[in-house]
Amino acid sequence: MSTLYPPDTLLLGWRQEIEATLGHVLADAQGPAATVRKAMRHAVLGGGKRLRPLLSLAVCRACGGRTEDVLVPAAALELVHTYSLVHDDLPAMDDDALRRGRPTVHVVFGEATAILAGDALLTLAFELLATHPPGDLAAARRADAVALVARAAGAAGMVGGQQADLEAERMAPESLEAGHLRWIHAHKTGALLGGAAELGALHAGWDAVRRRPLGRFGQALGLAFQIADDILDATASEEALGKTPGKDARSGKATYPLLFGLAESRRMAEEQMEAALAELRAAGVADGDGVLTALTRGAVRRQA
Amino acid sequence: MSTLYPPDTLLLGWRQEIEATLGHVLADAQGPAATVRKAMRHAVLGGGKRLRPLLSLAVCRACGGRTEDVLVPAAALELVHTYSLVHDDLPAMDDDALRRGRPTVHVVFGEATAILAGDALLTLAFELLATHPPGDLAAARRADAVALVARAAGAAGMVGGQQADLEAERMAPESLEAGHLRWIHAHKTGALLGGAAELGALHAGWDAVRRRPLGRFGQALGLAFQIADDILDATASEEALGKTPGKDARSGKATYPLLFGLAESRRMAEEQMEAALAELRAAGVADGDGVLTALTRGAVRRQA
Repeated sequence: MSTLYPPDTLLLGWRQEIEATLGHVLADAQGPAATVRKAMRHAVLGGGKRLRPLLSLAVCRACGGRTEDVLVPAAALELVHTYSLVHDDLPAMDDDALRRGRPTVHVVFGEATAILAGDALLTLAFELLATHPPGDLAAARRADAVALVARAAGAAGMVGGQQADLEAERMAPESLEAGHLRWIHAHKTGALLGGAAELGALHAGWDAVRRRPLGRFGQALGLAFQIADDILDATASEEALGKTPGKDARSGKATYPLLFGLAESRRMAEEQMEAALAELRAAGVADGDGVLTALTRGAVRRQA
Repeated sequence: MSTLYPPDTLLLGWRQEIEATLGHVLADAQGPAATVRKAMRHAVLGGGKRLRPLLSLAVCRACGGRTEDVLVPAAALELVHTYSLVHDDLPAMDDDALRRGRPTVHVVFGEATAILAGDALLTLAFELLATHPPGDLAAARRADAVALVARAAGAAGMVGGQQADLEAERMAPESLEAGHLRWIHAHKTGALLGGAAELGALHAGWDAVRRRPLGRFGQALGLAFQIADDILDATASEEALGKTPGKDARSGKATYPLLFGLAESRRMAEEQMEAALAELRAAGVADGDGVLTALTRGAVRRQA
């Protein structure tokens, strides 16, 4: 079982392991296609909260698994998340020039390479999920991990949320119902965070039925995270965010602050965070040292 | 072992099974993200030679496997191929309005949805590879299949070839060396066809060492196929091709006809096709009814 560490010490150590893993899997290359690899590195290694891999590691440990088994699969989730940002920032999508405090991939490398770098990041993610952890005994888990992440990231999950988000931008914000906005956030952000939590349980050896409540925990956390994101877009500075703030309002996008006001949105983020923690307790995992609770609270009560 | 059928009868039956499988895995959906699913269907179900899945089925059978084991994984390869076309046709890439005789995805659904539909097709492909054929005994094969296809499709394979192709377009065609053009084609087209052949052997139970010559066969076929493609782009009509011909010349792209002339290119396509058939013989598979040979010759000696 888990040794007791202060949550921040554990999370910091994991972050360093995740960064090292990402640097390793994105090794620079020579040859005719070197540019697309440079673009992949630029996208991934420029900072980021690494919330999805941290969630996988924390859940794996809380489920009694070994974090080293889920380290590479967790890093793969960060590649999936980053590919979605690279494509989302394209001129044809959100048209954003700044991400994680640096110029976006298409600004530095051009649109075509940004499209290809996103494609290659998604593909590499599945290669890593299919090959880690190695060994014959883990083969079934690896196949399940690919399926789990693909469902969370595809048309029934994250990409579906992005499509609905695109279409919602073309509607008058006041005509958007709260349930629809929740659907968008649950798919665009909640699905992959649910997948991250489930992936941690999977590589701790938990079967599909037993890990389902952990998926719900991740989804609930995702929704709380996204409400916090909407609030930050409306209130934080570009310097703090590392991306262009106020974009939602300018693009006429429906957000929690626009639909409910700032104060009510803040209350809803807290309420949704507590709902996530309730799911966590219901899942019956041992968060003895409070690292999952600390990660959940930190993901919602953040300044950037 | 294989029953003897005329190759064309077998290939026609397989094509019908592949079409039915593609229609099934791309079932229409309701809800907020229905548009992206419509775009996926538009991209995939509008025709196409289905060369990659046919190659997987033919190799699987020639290796003594059951074609029903590889049918869904083979269909997944067609999704990977189609996603690459959808992204390649985007204005930021090749900017093409016509594909398989129909308007391209971004022309019908807009650029943003075309990017997302491509992303979702790639993601669905990996979900299918990770889940088919079902059963505990096939789990290791499924994980290997994901890794095999990801390597063929990613930065070290198809996407790397597309990146190099993009950069080559910005060079003066006469400055491009034959070896570089061959590298581009081997990656852009050869890698996934090599993967298709290997996938067939994998699901017939052949291990990595034994299936390597089949990968080389697929790669060699891919190169022959691409030389034939270059020739058709320079000579065929839009009606026959189902896509805009003469694009290579207009975009100043280096091609086999431009570097070597039409007659020499035709000779090279035949030579490369014979090299592919020699790899096939070296792999030691039983092409008793000649279906692999027929598929290879048909892929090169085609009118569209």
